[in-house]
Formats: sequence, structure tokens, C-alpha cells
Amino acid sequence: MTIDLDQLQQGNRRALAKAITLVESKLDNHRAQAQQILEQVLPKTGNSIRIGITGIPGVGKSTFIETFGLYLIEQGKKVAVLAVDPSSPLAGGSILGDKTRMEELSRRNEAYIRPSPSEGALGGVAQKTRETMLLCEAAGYDVIIVETVGVGQSEYEVAGMVDFFMVLMLPNAGDELQGIKKGIMELADALVVNKADGESLNLAAQTKRHYENALHLLRQSSFWSPQVLTCSAQEKNNIDTVWGMISNYHIDAVKNNAFYEKRSRQNQEWMDKLLFEMLELKLKQNPDVKQQLPDLHKKVVNGETTPFIAAKTLIDLL
Amino acid sequence: MTIDLDQLQQGNRRALAKAITLVESKLDNHRAQAQQILEQVLPKTGNSIRIGITGIPGVGKSTFIETFGLYLIEQGKKVAVLAVDPSSPLAGGSILGDKTRMEELSRRNEAYIRPSPSEGALGGVAQKTRETMLLCEAAGYDVIIVETVGVGQSEYEVAGMVDFFMVLMLPNAGDELQGIKKGIMELADALVVNKADGESLNLAAQTKRHYENALHLLRQSSFWSPQVLTCSAQEKNNIDTVWGMISNYHIDAVKNNAFYEKRSRQNQEWMDKLLFEMLELKLKQNPDVKQQLPDLHKKVVNGETTPFIAAKTLIDLL
Repeated sequence: MTIDLDQLQQGNRRALAKAITLVESKLDNHRAQAQQILEQVLPKTGNSIRIGITGIPGVGKSTFIETFGLYLIEQGKKVAVLAVDPSSPLAGGSILGDKTRMEELSRRNEAYIRPSPSEGALGGVAQKTRETMLLCEAAGYDVIIVETVGVGQSEYEVAGMVDFFMVLMLPNAGDELQGIKKGIMELADALVVNKADGESLNLAAQTKRHYENALHLLRQSSFWSPQVLTCSAQEKNNIDTVWGMISNYHIDAVKNNAFYEKRSRQNQEWMDKLLFEMLELKLKQNPDVKQQLPDLHKKVVNGETTPFIAAKTLIDLL
Repeated sequence: MTIDLDQLQQGNRRALAKAITLVESKLDNHRAQAQQILEQVLPKTGNSIRIGITGIPGVGKSTFIETFGLYLIEQGKKVAVLAVDPSSPLAGGSILGDKTRMEELSRRNEAYIRPSPSEGALGGVAQKTRETMLLCEAAGYDVIIVETVGVGQSEYEVAGMVDFFMVLMLPNAGDELQGIKKGIMELADALVVNKADGESLNLAAQTKRHYENALHLLRQSSFWSPQVLTCSAQEKNNIDTVWGMISNYHIDAVKNNAFYEKRSRQNQEWMDKLLFEMLELKLKQNPDVKQQLPDLHKKVVNGETTPFIAAKTLIDLL
């Protein structure tokens, strides 16, 4: 497959889609070609604001992203929407695969919506989404939205690849934190209580106060204190406030040098993660290790040997 | 050095001390001998309740452990107190090294107090403390208390080697969570507000309610809901309540099969951690990798190459 890099960098959707296909391919030669392309476009990447969004099913993620994305386009932005969905579409489990979720946004020329890749090898789905993000940046998208349903480790992975991480919430103070896993509150740069409309207006305000208290308890010193907002994606209320908050974050983060520091740290952490995955693969593909690993694991679990001795035995096989 | 394993298993303190010295030694042949001993005593280990205790300096950890330990001895238990202090005594930074902190307890025959080992190689200080814990169990100690001041990752490491993890707190609702790092609340099986005495009694009760609310927000479904207690180690108040809680946890955990499952999981996780540390060592000791790693790290940080390409380059050198 040939990709016209000039076309890609001029924002040609066909060239972008073809490059993403290479990134997502299972074929080794495609993957190698993808790495070449990434290296070539790298100088053109990094100029977007990367926003991560999570929230339980039913919170209105699609409606929010549609409304938010259309608002951003009104402000003159080009918007890419990517997804990290650890349940592979091939296994019939994809929740974020349906493009028709954001009908109006997906018809716009200024928007590019890409469903979650299916399971990846090294680095998993997150690795492919990271690479797709770079391609979208090279193609001139100003805002990259990375969406996840928060199954497994996916929130952590998304939080680790974006500049700003947002959790959408329901205006239901009674079900506080329901469905929100340990640690997610601590990843969030903002909580946004969606569906703050009609009869839920009061409830949403209550919920906002409730989470403000909770965040206060968890808050760490840093230039940014996580904020709690309410909005209604359905009624297009407060969408500008959400964007205003993210813009403020961006300005403050750049001023405090935190913006590029965070990205550097994310890149370093990702490199370390990949390095360990590749090492693990090398270890587990070793035939002697393959043979002895299950037995050693069992011995450790049953308390028949120590973790140290088991690990040492395996390493010495390499 | 020869260790009499029979003596060790009969609770001889000298044999125990000698074995711990081997575990803590920097010499390769000592370490090898230590691993042999551990493998031999392994069938005699695992019969204690392992309790982790953390809390900021000034919370009264030493006084609490002294009072708690003496109470356990009254109940007919043998108690070992170990420490995980990531600041090496050799560097002059040890906080938990001072045996005189628990004067009365340290004079008792039923108690064995061991200051934190200095920095370890693989697995760090935590690895040595784990091994010492096994030796103490083989020597017949019924309760192992592992103490940490909570610098760096030490709470996580202690929480990962004990059955029950407790955070000591000050009766000061105003300074809520002060000094408590992200995530610690989520590791805790119990919070114990110490110094609930004299004029602080009301404040301690307030603090208890405050943390009960905070824990409620973070609570995960499991057979055990983290509890908040108040006590005064100084006045020996409610020490029996703390032990009662831990006993109840133990009974429930065994009943729910969670007790040995947790230990198996801890062993597996520790094995994986050691395996990765050993792999990392193997990687970083490779001369080609040594030469290229700094440059590749810099390129990743500066956005001149992708984390994937950098990791792949290093792995291909092996």
C-alpha cells in the first residue's frame, strides 16, 4: 500500500484512512511501514489538544461528543474522535464501534471519527490509538478526543495518552461513584455532570457539590485543581464552559511548563511499558521458559517455592 | 556461616538473627545460602497474621506498636516487628532504625524487633523484609507487624506483603488526609485514629466520622468494608478493639477463601515483579543497550522518535 505523505499532511481523509489502516493491520510488513510513516510525520505531530473522555454506558458520551465536537467546529477547529475499547469488535463486543452514534458530527468535513481498533499485539489497543492520534495530528486536527467506556485498564491507558482527562457523570447523587472504579477519580482533571436539564437540574447541582467534596479529599498539590462542571449535551447548555475550562487548563499548563513535561513523561512511561512487554514476549517465547513457567507459577501459588527462586529459575533459562 | 535450622524452627533468636543477616547480606554467596534456607523452611511458614502499619511521623507508630505488641503478648502471642524504610540507614536517613523506640517491647522474650534492612538489590528493601518475614514465621512468631513511614512506594510494597493493612491517623479533622498520598486510602483495610485521649477525644470522634464518609465514597464491593476506629496507645484504650477487628477480618477472610487467595495473589504479583526486575537488569547490563539507551530516551522525550521505535531498537540489540 502506498501512502502519499504530502496528501496526509494536507489533511486528505483518504490518505489518513489508509495510514490508519496500516497502523491497525495485523501484517508485519504493514506494521513496519506504519512505523516508517510515523517516524516521517513525527515533526508534524503534537500540535493538538488531546482530551480523554470516559463514563459509564448511559451517561451520554456519544451525545456529549457530538455536541462538543460541533461546538468546536463552530470555533474553527478540526476534530478527531478516536476510541479505546478493549472489547474487540471481532469478538462481537465493541461498544464504541458504531459510527452512527454521532450522526451529525460524522457528516462534517472538519471531523474525523474512527472506531476503536480491534485487539493489538504490543501495547494493545492503546498503542494503535496512540499511533492513530499522531496521524490525525499530522493531518492537521486541532482537537483529538479519545473516548473509552472504562472496561479493564482502558481509563488508565487513555489518561496516559491525553493532555486532559474528563469523566462524565450522571446527575444522580444517590448512585454516587457507581460504576466508577478505584483510582479513576484521581486520574480526572475534571468531572462533568451531564444531563443537567429539566427535572434533573437540582440533582445535578447536588451531585456537583458532592463530587467537589470528594475531589477535595483526594486533591493533590499541583497547578491544577480538578474541577466539577454540569452541562447538558442534549440541550447544548454549558458546552462552552467545558471548552473554556479545557482552554484555561491548556494556557496554565503551558505557562507552568507542565504541558510538555506531561507529554514527555507519558512518552517515557509508554516506552518503558512497551520495553517490558517486548521483554516479556521474548521471555515467554523462550521454549525452556514456556515449558517451566506453568509449573513454577503453581509452586509459587501453593507456597512450595518463593517468588524469588521461581523468578531466578526462569531468568537463568534465558 | 552455618545456621542450625532446627534451632531456628524452635525459635532460637540467635539462629534467627543469623539467618536474617544472610538475607540482608550484600554478598552473593550469602544471598545464595539465604535462598537455600528459605526453601528449606518454607513448609513451616505462613502461619502468622501479617499486619501492615503506616502513618505519618508524629502519629505515634512506635507507641502504638509497643502497646499493641505488649497486648498481643498478654494474649499469648509471639510478635515480630519488621520495618520497610526506603531511606537507607547507610545514607543516614533511616527513620525506623531506632530500636529504643519500643523499649519495653524490645526487652520481651516473646517479641523480635528488626529495623529496616538497608537498600536491597532485586526487589529492594521489600524483598528482604518479605524474606525476613518468612524466617520469623518459621521461628514461630504468630503476629508479624510490618511498619513503614510511607516514603516513596513503601506503603504499596507493605500492603502487598501483609494480610491486613492499617493506616494510623491523627485526631485532626482539619488536616484531613494531610500527608496521605493518593491511593493509600484505597489500600487500607482499616484506619485507626490514634491519640484519642484527653482533649482530643471529641476531635478523634469527628475525624472518625469524616474518614468513614471518605471511605464510603471509595468503598469497593468485597467481603470486607474498611473500618475506622479510634484508640489511644498512650492510655492503652481500645487496643483490644483493634485486635478484635483484625481477628474478625481473619475469621471472615478464611471463611470467604479470601485469606489464602490474597496471599497467592501477592506471591504471584511479587514473582512477576521480580521477573521484570531481573529482565530489566539483564537488558540494562547489555553493553549495546547501555550505550544506546540514554540517547533513545532523549529522542523519545524530545519527540524525535516514537516510544515504539525506541523500545524495538533496544530489544533488537539483545
